[in-house]
Amino acid sequence: MDKIAHSECNKLLVPVRDALDILSGKWKLPIITTLRFGVIRFKELEREIPGITAKMLSKELKELEMNQLVKRTVLDTTPISVTYELTEYGRSLETVILELGKWGKAHRERIFA
Amino acid sequence: MDKIAHSECNKLLVPVRDALDILSGKWKLPIITTLRFGVIRFKELEREIPGITAKMLSKELKELEMNQLVKRTVLDTTPISVTYELTEYGRSLETVILELGKWGKAHRERIFA
Repeated sequence: MDKIAHSECNKLLVPVRDALDILSGKWKLPIITTLRFGVIRFKELEREIPGITAKMLSKELKELEMNQLVKRTVLDTTPISVTYELTEYGRSLETVILELGKWGKAHRERIFA
Repeated sequence: MDKIAHSECNKLLVPVRDALDILSGKWKLPIITTLRFGVIRFKELEREIPGITAKMLSKELKELEMNQLVKRTVLDTTPISVTYELTEYGRSLETVILELGKWGKAHRERIFA
């Protein structure tokens, strides 16, 4: 086996792994998918994702914010309310999610055919 | 928020989740990437993937075989040897992996810019 080509290959794996890390885990996908619907308040987001706790939602949103995929806005209401939305950059995930969905759909049809 | 559209969205998540399950975990990607190089014996595959045990490699290969992504061939040599290769169908993962890699690369550049 060609050692050099293979170490090149491993270098390719790092960004693939990065993308998978962002999308994997139980909650990232449901949060990103829900936020595709627009600007959503924390409480509504929590209601929309069955089984998620406020603590977990807050942690996941912080990570998505850190990765510049989600924007958090504090509204000057009483009581204060906070909304979340996908950033323009966050919407760039759409192609990857659609590609994964396409492959996953074909796979499901093939395996359970 | 439009409840009906959202339940549609959740239905879309299932195939995305299927694809992620196939690609996630520590070893699937390095195995699939190594097998892109052609037909490889078990022992060589084990050597090519630092840190993997024979037991783990065998388990992961069985799963990939079950998902029709990898083909196993027993060679009538003494001692018997076994080779593995990506199936034609297994190569269909390439588009998804490339899309993930593209997004991951851009993400890395953006976040660490």
